[in-house]
Amino acid sequence: MMRWVAGGVTAARGFMASGISAGIKPSRRPDLALVVSRHPAAAAAVFTTNRIKAAPVVISQRRLRRRQARAVLINSGCANCLTGEAGLRDAQRLSRLVARGIGLADHEILLASTGLIGTRLPVVRVERAIPRLLGSLNRQQHEEAAWAILTTDRHPKEAAVSVAVRGGMFHVGGMAKGAGMIAPSMATMLCVMTTDVAAPQPLLRRLLRQASAATFNRISVDGDMSTNDTVFLLANGRSGVQLRAGASSVPVFATALQAVAQRLARMLVADGEGASRLMEVVVSGARSAHEARLCARAVVTSPLVKTMLAGGDANVGRIAAAVGASPARFDPDALDIRIQDQRVVAKGRVVPLPASVVRTLLRRPSVAVRIDLHAGRAEDRMTTCDFTTDYVRINAGYAT
Amino acid sequence: MMRWVAGGVTAARGFMASGISAGIKPSRRPDLALVVSRHPAAAAAVFTTNRIKAAPVVISQRRLRRRQARAVLINSGCANCLTGEAGLRDAQRLSRLVARGIGLADHEILLASTGLIGTRLPVVRVERAIPRLLGSLNRQQHEEAAWAILTTDRHPKEAAVSVAVRGGMFHVGGMAKGAGMIAPSMATMLCVMTTDVAAPQPLLRRLLRQASAATFNRISVDGDMSTNDTVFLLANGRSGVQLRAGASSVPVFATALQAVAQRLARMLVADGEGASRLMEVVVSGARSAHEARLCARAVVTSPLVKTMLAGGDANVGRIAAAVGASPARFDPDALDIRIQDQRVVAKGRVVPLPASVVRTLLRRPSVAVRIDLHAGRAEDRMTTCDFTTDYVRINAGYAT
Repeated sequence: MMRWVAGGVTAARGFMASGISAGIKPSRRPDLALVVSRHPAAAAAVFTTNRIKAAPVVISQRRLRRRQARAVLINSGCANCLTGEAGLRDAQRLSRLVARGIGLADHEILLASTGLIGTRLPVVRVERAIPRLLGSLNRQQHEEAAWAILTTDRHPKEAAVSVAVRGGMFHVGGMAKGAGMIAPSMATMLCVMTTDVAAPQPLLRRLLRQASAATFNRISVDGDMSTNDTVFLLANGRSGVQLRAGASSVPVFATALQAVAQRLARMLVADGEGASRLMEVVVSGARSAHEARLCARAVVTSPLVKTMLAGGDANVGRIAAAVGASPARFDPDALDIRIQDQRVVAKGRVVPLPASVVRTLLRRPSVAVRIDLHAGRAEDRMTTCDFTTDYVRINAGYAT
Repeated sequence: MMRWVAGGVTAARGFMASGISAGIKPSRRPDLALVVSRHPAAAAAVFTTNRIKAAPVVISQRRLRRRQARAVLINSGCANCLTGEAGLRDAQRLSRLVARGIGLADHEILLASTGLIGTRLPVVRVERAIPRLLGSLNRQQHEEAAWAILTTDRHPKEAAVSVAVRGGMFHVGGMAKGAGMIAPSMATMLCVMTTDVAAPQPLLRRLLRQASAATFNRISVDGDMSTNDTVFLLANGRSGVQLRAGASSVPVFATALQAVAQRLARMLVADGEGASRLMEVVVSGARSAHEARLCARAVVTSPLVKTMLAGGDANVGRIAAAVGASPARFDPDALDIRIQDQRVVAKGRVVPLPASVVRTLLRRPSVAVRIDLHAGRAEDRMTTCDFTTDYVRINAGYAT
């Protein structure tokens, strides 16, 4: 019933996109993207929980009170954060130009920015580029848009599905950027998802929150949380499929939305700054869902665990040490840890395995770690990448 | 009144030490240390809060219920953690040999181990080395002992003071090891401090807790918390100076103890794995002491802040982003951040400074960051080191 399809953020009917270089990045790489719905759309979003919010976050939050939007304007190369009133004015000025260019009201444009914190947007340069941005808007430019929102990412991230249901065929698609500052307690990233279902905005918002909680909020690159994180969802109804609370199409749509979000989330971790492999951590047997989550989080944010993973180093005691340092309550003599079905800690003791065996377990593209606390029934999971010298190299010279 | 003196852990009267290579480390570097008081001593300790505790921690906690001890036996190269009953027996066996060798009861020996988690001690080899360890015990061997407790540390860490008070002259001295897994919420490290004052054990314990909270618990290398962290304090009364609750000598002693702990703590961060420079973060204007602490902790554990520091990269927005991601409540438009008295964020805006100016501020051996939340009166501080490619290199191959 659900099929993966091409098309990314314009896979759903009635959406167009474009991505160009507007000269915000000194490198002259693409840095300005636009996604537009040809028709009115219900809009929902999840934003960073960082107390410091970038100008585009502040503006988008205000505009979303109307629950409707038609376009998302995103720039990379500048976060437009800690830029005060001037930064708000910059963002509003650009958004006004875009609104006029495509015949919309200001409040129908949502905004996102990513890049260096504390610098102003080169507004004059971006203004001059906007006609070019609008001129290249079409359904084919989804990949250009996906390129234009990247910072230190190596690859663009796109995903889309088509789903056949009674009453028609709908689509969900999206694009995302991640790399650094990816942390749980908000998917520290930018993401735009689009769909051609019709849905009441409160339902849309609820489903977006659920999908984000299960995907973007279950990944971590470096435990940091950015000032600009945003996930947008626009639904323009062009498929003719209507979602109504309680109808059977709702769980179908929820599954499709979560599948797209999950695929984008995995791409984010796989492309984490400097990442060479992934680790999926499942914590079971916790006394509460909260403790399961905190325990998984402690493991995926531990620099000692993540550097061990980078080296494929047989030092599994570090996983146990991270578990013990978390707030989760458990009996240390009951702790079990498996890597790929091989028990490495059994009843609180490191299993004496040849180092070569453990290294083989760890030196895979994706390492599955299962931690059983044997203290209750709650479970949670989290995905992270390893911590390499490249991560440090990238981040030690980000502004230079 | 207080003078820094040589002598480390044997600066106080009546203490001896030794440090040898017992073949626990494959490198044949020194890995076994002993500190002995010639006379009965009151003993106190602070231990890791990690739920997983190494065998020597479990044994020492039990023995300290007697509030007295005469010796501390420490090995590096093996944490003796997650080793179950066998690990407990190994530790007890070695401690019994030491006790017999110097004519003490088992329970008078305290234990600490550091190194790889999950491997057993090479007991037979260590047993054979113990006569040599006991044979070299004397007052001059404090530096050998300080060398023998190191893992990835580059330098031994010793500090001692002598203090003249009415009634005589007392000493406080100590040695420590740190490097990785240094995190607040226990000084993630090993430390032995000795003094020749006489003091009731409950008083001693209270003063040790206070000194640790202000020093070892205010530093962070990588946010990780080990399974073996221990700070010991032995007081044998040989100076003739008596501490009694309420007497004026108590705050004098407390100051001396904290000074030694503080110097050792600074050495730990300066010698953090791969560290090239320090950052001292002071958070003021917080709504509560708790929030001040969490805010300082968020900054010193942020990989993005720590890699920026490594590169001396003009990217101060990352400090603000870490502050915003912490649980501290504040008005983003009131936030002020200074680096070395230069305001870099003023009322929530990044001050537009030439990148070269910011780089000069950051490229110092020790960088002072002052964050004013303007939300209350509470203050706290934390010291950390930068996050370099060397940290990753050291930890990606620790077990190999």
